[in-house]
Amino acid sequence: MVIIIKDKATEEQVGELMEWLHGFNVKTNLVTGIHSRIIGLIGDTTSIDIDAVQAREIVEAVRRVQEPYKNANRRFHPDDTVIEVGGKKIGGGTLSVIAGPCSVETEDRLMQTALAVKEAGADFLRGGAFKPRTSPYAFQGLGKEGIDLLIQARKETGLPIVTEIMDLSDLDLFADIDIVQVGARNMQNFTLLKALGRCDKPVLLKRGLSATLQELLMSAEYIMSEGNSKVILCERGIRTFEPETRNTLDISAVPLLRQKTHLPIVIDPSHATGVGSLVEPMAVCAVAAGADALEIEVHIDPKSAWSDGAQSLTPAQFTSAMKKIRAMERFCREELR
Amino acid sequence: MVIIIKDKATEEQVGELMEWLHGFNVKTNLVTGIHSRIIGLIGDTTSIDIDAVQAREIVEAVRRVQEPYKNANRRFHPDDTVIEVGGKKIGGGTLSVIAGPCSVETEDRLMQTALAVKEAGADFLRGGAFKPRTSPYAFQGLGKEGIDLLIQARKETGLPIVTEIMDLSDLDLFADIDIVQVGARNMQNFTLLKALGRCDKPVLLKRGLSATLQELLMSAEYIMSEGNSKVILCERGIRTFEPETRNTLDISAVPLLRQKTHLPIVIDPSHATGVGSLVEPMAVCAVAAGADALEIEVHIDPKSAWSDGAQSLTPAQFTSAMKKIRAMERFCREELR
Amino acid sequence: MVIIIKDKATEEQVGELMEWLHGFNVKTNLVTGIHSRIIGLIGDTTSIDIDAVQAREIVEAVRRVQEPYKNANRRFHPDDTVIEVGGKKIGGGTLSVIAGPCSVETEDRLMQTALAVKEAGADFLRGGAFKPRTSPYAFQGLGKEGIDLLIQARKETGLPIVTEIMDLSDLDLFADIDIVQVGARNMQNFTLLKALGRCDKPVLLKRGLSATLQELLMSAEYIMSEGNSKVILCERGIRTFEPETRNTLDISAVPLLRQKTHLPIVIDPSHATGVGSLVEPMAVCAVAAGADALEIEVHIDPKSAWSDGAQSLTPAQFTSAMKKIRAMERFCREELR
Amino acid sequence: MVIIIKDKATEEQVGELMEWLHGFNVKTNLVTGIHSRIIGLIGDTTSIDIDAVQAREIVEAVRRVQEPYKNANRRFHPDDTVIEVGGKKIGGGTLSVIAGPCSVETEDRLMQTALAVKEAGADFLRGGAFKPRTSPYAFQGLGKEGIDLLIQARKETGLPIVTEIMDLSDLDLFADIDIVQVGARNMQNFTLLKALGRCDKPVLLKRGLSATLQELLMSAEYIMSEGNSKVILCERGIRTFEPETRNTLDISAVPLLRQKTHLPIVIDPSHATGVGSLVEPMAVCAVAAGADALEIEVHIDPKSAWSDGAQSLTPAQFTSAMKKIRAMERFCREELR
Repeated sequence: MVIIIKDKATEEQVGELMEWLHGFNVKTNLVTGIHSRIIGLIGDTTSIDIDAVQAREIVEAVRRVQEPYKNANRRFHPDDTVIEVGGKKIGGGTLSVIAGPCSVETEDRLMQTALAVKEAGADFLRGGAFKPRTSPYAFQGLGKEGIDLLIQARKETGLPIVTEIMDLSDLDLFADIDIVQVGARNMQNFTLLKALGRCDKPVLLKRGLSATLQELLMSAEYIMSEGNSKVILCERGIRTFEPETRNTLDISAVPLLRQKTHLPIVIDPSHATGVGSLVEPMAVCAVAAGADALEIEVHIDPKSAWSDGAQSLTPAQFTSAMKKIRAMERFCREELR
Repeated sequence: MVIIIKDKATEEQVGELMEWLHGFNVKTNLVTGIHSRIIGLIGDTTSIDIDAVQAREIVEAVRRVQEPYKNANRRFHPDDTVIEVGGKKIGGGTLSVIAGPCSVETEDRLMQTALAVKEAGADFLRGGAFKPRTSPYAFQGLGKEGIDLLIQARKETGLPIVTEIMDLSDLDLFADIDIVQVGARNMQNFTLLKALGRCDKPVLLKRGLSATLQELLMSAEYIMSEGNSKVILCERGIRTFEPETRNTLDISAVPLLRQKTHLPIVIDPSHATGVGSLVEPMAVCAVAAGADALEIEVHIDPKSAWSDGAQSLTPAQFTSAMKKIRAMERFCREELR
Repeated sequence: MVIIIKDKATEEQVGELMEWLHGFNVKTNLVTGIHSRIIGLIGDTTSIDIDAVQAREIVEAVRRVQEPYKNANRRFHPDDTVIEVGGKKIGGGTLSVIAGPCSVETEDRLMQTALAVKEAGADFLRGGAFKPRTSPYAFQGLGKEGIDLLIQARKETGLPIVTEIMDLSDLDLFADIDIVQVGARNMQNFTLLKALGRCDKPVLLKRGLSATLQELLMSAEYIMSEGNSKVILCERGIRTFEPETRNTLDISAVPLLRQKTHLPIVIDPSHATGVGSLVEPMAVCAVAAGADALEIEVHIDPKSAWSDGAQSLTPAQFTSAMKKIRAMERFCREELR
Repeated sequence: MVIIIKDKATEEQVGELMEWLHGFNVKTNLVTGIHSRIIGLIGDTTSIDIDAVQAREIVEAVRRVQEPYKNANRRFHPDDTVIEVGGKKIGGGTLSVIAGPCSVETEDRLMQTALAVKEAGADFLRGGAFKPRTSPYAFQGLGKEGIDLLIQARKETGLPIVTEIMDLSDLDLFADIDIVQVGARNMQNFTLLKALGRCDKPVLLKRGLSATLQELLMSAEYIMSEGNSKVILCERGIRTFEPETRNTLDISAVPLLRQKTHLPIVIDPSHATGVGSLVEPMAVCAVAAGADALEIEVHIDPKSAWSDGAQSLTPAQFTSAMKKIRAMERFCREELR
């Protein structure tokens, strides 16, 4: 940690600040320039709240040298984390594809879609039973019934299932779910994150609409610091000023997160764009960028979907996209990396 | 609702779409231009999911004519909502000031701060017992003990109390709290919003970091649609590219929300700026813009605060700010409006 | 300047970096921590390009301690700059109001508007002769004829005139203009800024749509470093994700710029909101925030305006707004500051 | 164009508005709903200023059905534009690579870099002679001397040259340049765009830091409407809240622009990320997304570069990146499209 002191600070004030810092069991090193003084901290600074330092009247600016996350940090865990679930892997050099409808709607529609995505080569089935909708008047999901239908779909297809939790009071219902998803709007629902940290279950954590990558990693750290290290990070588009797409896919998040963390990285091109015709090109592009997995919305009949139809692929579109996705996966593995 | 049809759509497709729309009990009116066809919908369109319309292959664009919220809509409730609690009012022409520490830390510090803000003219005491912190290693709040201390502080000062709920599993602990605050990170925690909608307790709802004003109103609608109409909206800064301030205060939200809704509007200059020296000018400015209330962080000793010290005022600074705030309130009431 | 060195850097590499830095005539001070090394620079670092430092392979991060602007910096020029032009002042405790149509359209309309804004108490007349329009098919301004009409309007009303320059090839046409405006889209047209720096004429510099305040100050520095210190800074809304307003007024820019610079600060509530009904409340609010001047679009008949009609006030609306603006000015001067 | 009328408008007002619209030689069709009336316009609406419509007191909202650009619109020009220059092509199925230093610094450095990028397989040489720098105290480019050096480098390598124009007063100096670049900060320098529209020279137009894709296309339209149809669009990262990268690469711009326009699309991964280690992965990813060309900064010795060193590749890094880029190009052409 580096602390820049204001011009006007007296020697006494600087001395008092340094004494306070010594209370955190770190050493300090004062550098005196013409217009400025800087304190460099030596030792483990994770217990020092950067806000508390900033709050001191004589402090101009503070900067952390080390990242404030440990468990999620590649620096301390150089090897890629590979998450195994239901006979499938996420991370470690293979590409996994999670596909299925935005919402679980009816048994018939879910089974048809599940069979179709399996046929097309998906590895996991997704489907929302609890739906976070902007409007209270929109379809809110089937709840427990949706969970039961997903479990039934797993039985029929063999595909492990991924579905979103909206509140920790529903946690018991997720006992038989393979991967629990935390949506963008809950990325900083810290109570939920901690509860999931005490489960032995993979968590797919979506980046908030305007969350920085460091905040995403800090949310992963919340889960990991409670003991659960099976965290999968998901970039699903960030909110910008551009109106043509629902969100803006931050594709550079893939190589950047790869440098900073050992956790697997998923791209969700459906929410990232909100536009059906952009899903395939962005999915292929995400594979080229090095994503470990894709999450894609597929619906047996998008125009009659109860949510997110505009960004859902038909089974035929998904099958066609999967051919390109798998071809790109092979090319990257065999010729690029 | 206005639906713009793609050039290439066949008459049959347009006919099928119109038939589908009639199923929602609305009338349709087709306008044919040279390069485009437009369907105007006549009747109550709130039950039609705009996404579902957008998902139709032949639809170029859709636009709602009416706002998708009813309970929060000034159009249907022209009179300002005034919320009375603990002998104080929020809304209806007076200015309320909510002040206190970011976090409840110790009994001594809380009581000192509570007495100081009361002395300076605050109407409500705020203090966090459950703290949503970016880092799992930062102070997370005293929890139930913090709630008890707040209740004790109310007893000593007579100030009604405002504190944040982070998860609905804690709801019982808030039985004796005057105003329950929902933080920016939970603005779209819909399960929590619905649960609060079934309480008979005022809810102070903070705007999410990148939430549009319409999304804020839809979150208010979640609470109101369950029966609780005591919702207070709070603008606390939005996330932009500007690094000098923690967030950017969207001051035009005050007159804009005033036009769109009858609910009271609070400004939080502390979180909006994150910079102590900007809190007073932005508080005064918010009063001039017509805010119904202010929420300001005050700490007996900001430099030793356990959270958000950099943006907290000392009691002396708060007292000085309150003089200007009250002067501005008087001026606006007597000479401006 | 503080330079944070990567873990893996060898002593030789660090030595080489320090030697390179000494070439800029600064002293270096190396602080060694457990996981990091930091170099503090002592001396005048303005000649060191921060990008060049960042580019060194062994550099983790660099941070400037001092602002990279000198002429615009309050640290070196503590007294407020007051700009006098045509018998009027901008800065120094009075509030100036610049008003007029978005575009100069016809002689008749301009004269009517000019007389109306003068009557209502405006200090300066604005009007666009060269118009930066998003579409090449939109009205582009009257050019030289517009300048001539402005000069004529000044003759009739006595109000000094403000108008926008779009390209330095037009500079000669501005010889008789009182204040030359640089629009948001030209804030980083550095060739134009330098040319204006060699004129002896006040420049009203608008903040770019997504420019940081430091970038705005660096653009002011471009003008000032060429010798012209008569720069007026204008906040006119920044681009965010919020769709209800054309831009988002960053009102905290007023007290923040006040701390950082001695230059006068103008708020343009018309462009900041793009909504006529928000112009008055935001203008009043800007006065409360401490702005030195306002720039407001007024049109004799907004609904027939050739540009920006939606945000223009009628003379009657402007007259009514001016009463509140002047009342707020008096209140702030006499009772608040 | 669809115009939504406010509830309270009288029939007379609506009639007056429709009469005014008829003056633009379009037909109107009024649709009356319960809470709203809508006017659909039939005919060519490009001459109607959407702002002027919005400014009418009785207008709630207006929406264009057709894009406001014609020359750049794929709807009217279905075939891809291919730009041929100096024996090379941009667009039409091949991938072009533009590479070279951020700034032209010395003859020796430029020649070495030029030979190196040619050797590695680049198609065009880039280099800045006029440099738009945030600070007036930073290196501003060699100007005419830089242009001369570029021409000399073309002679030695045979690579056509791309360089940025900052002001139209320099236009004569660009007579012998192959592709004139307009930087992000000048994307809406409309005077410059119009002047370039009257040249018979390809223009590489960079997207502004916070420009929407439609605004980028409107700026292209400025050039094209003056007669020059050789416009190349460049996405170079947009400004967001994410601090890890200099900008955020909006990769979905590639397929989106492909749908909307026939103009070639370039991706600049150097400015989009600002981080050397992200340039190669983002370049490869841009090829997978379907870009027609890449623009990459290469410097013989990035750590001593006079500008943008942090994002420049060494010749060795560029050579290695080119192998992957060309492999990806082949794969996409032969197996994906």
